[in-house]
Amino acid sequence: MIIEILATGDEIRTGAAIDSNSAHIAQVLEQAGLEAIRHSCVGDDMDMIVSVLKEIGNRADVAVVTGGLGPTSDDITAEAAAKAKGVELVLNRSALGVVENFFKTRKRAMSPSNKKQAMLPRGAESFNNPVGSAPGFVLKIDRCSFFFVPGVPFEMKRMLSDEVLPRIEKLRGGTGELSLVKTLSIFGPTESVIGELLAGLSAEFPEITPGFRSKFPEIQVKLYVRGKDDQVLRKILEKASQSVLGKLGENIFSMNGSSMEAVVGGLLAEKEATLAIAESCTGGLISHMLTNVPGSSGYFLFSGITYSNEAKKKVLGVSSEVLQKYGAVHEETVKKMAQGARRVAGATYGLATSGIAGPDGGTDEKPVGTVCIGLATPHDVKGFRFVFPFNTRLMNKRIFAMKALDLLRRELQLKSIEN
Amino acid sequence: MIIEILATGDEIRTGAAIDSNSAHIAQVLEQAGLEAIRHSCVGDDMDMIVSVLKEIGNRADVAVVTGGLGPTSDDITAEAAAKAKGVELVLNRSALGVVENFFKTRKRAMSPSNKKQAMLPRGAESFNNPVGSAPGFVLKIDRCSFFFVPGVPFEMKRMLSDEVLPRIEKLRGGTGELSLVKTLSIFGPTESVIGELLAGLSAEFPEITPGFRSKFPEIQVKLYVRGKDDQVLRKILEKASQSVLGKLGENIFSMNGSSMEAVVGGLLAEKEATLAIAESCTGGLISHMLTNVPGSSGYFLFSGITYSNEAKKKVLGVSSEVLQKYGAVHEETVKKMAQGARRVAGATYGLATSGIAGPDGGTDEKPVGTVCIGLATPHDVKGFRFVFPFNTRLMNKRIFAMKALDLLRRELQLKSIEN
Repeated sequence: MIIEILATGDEIRTGAAIDSNSAHIAQVLEQAGLEAIRHSCVGDDMDMIVSVLKEIGNRADVAVVTGGLGPTSDDITAEAAAKAKGVELVLNRSALGVVENFFKTRKRAMSPSNKKQAMLPRGAESFNNPVGSAPGFVLKIDRCSFFFVPGVPFEMKRMLSDEVLPRIEKLRGGTGELSLVKTLSIFGPTESVIGELLAGLSAEFPEITPGFRSKFPEIQVKLYVRGKDDQVLRKILEKASQSVLGKLGENIFSMNGSSMEAVVGGLLAEKEATLAIAESCTGGLISHMLTNVPGSSGYFLFSGITYSNEAKKKVLGVSSEVLQKYGAVHEETVKKMAQGARRVAGATYGLATSGIAGPDGGTDEKPVGTVCIGLATPHDVKGFRFVFPFNTRLMNKRIFAMKALDLLRRELQLKSIEN
Repeated sequence: MIIEILATGDEIRTGAAIDSNSAHIAQVLEQAGLEAIRHSCVGDDMDMIVSVLKEIGNRADVAVVTGGLGPTSDDITAEAAAKAKGVELVLNRSALGVVENFFKTRKRAMSPSNKKQAMLPRGAESFNNPVGSAPGFVLKIDRCSFFFVPGVPFEMKRMLSDEVLPRIEKLRGGTGELSLVKTLSIFGPTESVIGELLAGLSAEFPEITPGFRSKFPEIQVKLYVRGKDDQVLRKILEKASQSVLGKLGENIFSMNGSSMEAVVGGLLAEKEATLAIAESCTGGLISHMLTNVPGSSGYFLFSGITYSNEAKKKVLGVSSEVLQKYGAVHEETVKKMAQGARRVAGATYGLATSGIAGPDGGTDEKPVGTVCIGLATPHDVKGFRFVFPFNTRLMNKRIFAMKALDLLRRELQLKSIEN
């Protein structure tokens, strides 16, 4: 079954918005053992949409189309679908029900522009949108069944899983072909070093297709395998993962696609340990990452974002002497900051960052990209210094934060092995 | 000039990675008055890449292609380009220079797999990559000039601006057609409310094409205009923006695409005011947003991420009585937190959040989505409570943070008007 994805909308065509919808759809299909072979995007232009719908209609069996179902004047997808099939737009009673129901359950007045959302191509089958006013619909154009859903991500996601995927699976019938993937997340070596370390993998496991994804600052190695027997595929994936683990060792921080913050959070929870943080150059990013993990209030006690030296002294108890002698960006200073955060919050571990994220503030001795990281444990305190070769403030904040969390992860895993 | 964008790579095709490259390329072209009319994406599959290159070669004048130029086994774009043109791969001396230079300046050893990156289609013109090992190249296939660049975002971005854009502008010659866009950023009303408020805009300004972009939790209204006279276009855009401003008022926080954090930072800097924050439910996100703005150390003094009640007491001086009487999520508590942060840091303003981001912790009285925000000024302190209807932790953190910054923005702008 040939599947394609089409995103419509000037905001995506012009790059004002990044098309995260197509990635989500591809991923959901992939997890169901279905493969989207191609994505396309065109703007809110009638001729372009009609032409690409005809093209895909002639090439694919199934297509998922996002965008252009809203109430505003640039929402023209339903009309384009009607033109591509050569039918007219008609008021779809079932679609009207979806729109009316949305406003009724929310006790909001329905505006005339929302009625437009129930005008669908003749022959279209509409389906429900449980979280928005725009109904979805299926329409066959040429050989292809097109599934039209709104471009608003949370509406699209819900309708994809509830309405679209079950219908596509029904169209597929029982081919029984499975596609499994395993994700190993790595922090440290570069992509080309990883590529070379894993050069022999395809020879060792011919069934596996490896993929490399740079998700700055981590790199993911994805192992894809296809076949009919779930058990057999899982065994191959497991063996191949172990082989990768043997080659990359503790640079791998996750074998299941988990984020660094989730891994660190899991280790803290497992040990019933708590954490306090003092962030300077990372400006709250480490705290934000950690608190994205549900349940983080169980181990994350406190973070002081101490941009000013005053705050470093007052909140963390770093002495004026230390700040004068070493400056704000120094191993000794971050050691005191980590100890201060740990003490203030009464936490098991204290983690601290101070560095130069840029674009200004760099010197010859401490260029932009320099970060000092302090890690206070129940037994000792360590100070580190690294210089990363990135030029942007955001990239520096991200790699500084990741490096700090990775140092804590290695400390926690070391303790696991010792105990 | 018809321009298209093509992204290659299984990580994008399968949705493992989101294609932010194509959006960036489209945006850079747009800013240069060039319009990409279509994006495509295919995986690391020789036949698919060859076929889509031929298709585009027959349809467009210029195409920018990302991905597949790396040293690993799944990098096959150069070979596919050679096949699509019907030529062979040859060692490109100038490309080899780029690869060798990369390793030489970094004092790193070049590995054999990197040599592959200099094997380009016969007839290709290579260009420099100042930040990575993969050279880019231009190749004409059928009627279209294809610009091939790596998929690593920071390499692609640099090569796009330094090498690709100047070459495309040369190809365009002097058609003189301009495309201008103005972005108005809104926080508050929903997209359909905005759409209805602006329903008359197209009639009032027929030259303007409006676009709506939901960039949760903000909504952007983009005004596009095309023509030959820069002065005339700018006047139309200015008039149309003023009309939108009249309709949406202070819900518009930026008229130039700036982020909320940049706007708030700008207002603080302008007033020589400083800020301290106490974050509970937003977990560092407000601090992270503010410190993404270069120069934020000039006004951002301190933030206490006080997840635990202990930290609220110890660091911010919130009394046990207040916490017992009102609980952590309450207008009175966040008022004390805001005052505490302001006092500890000696800042002009104090901003505090406490709420329930979910997925757990909600009650009938304070459901998931509830946030209390405190704002301490030199004159007074205010407490607010809002309940947002979103279900995910991340969406809640984002809208809580945005709401807090928006309250501060309105306070700062109010003061501007009063003074």
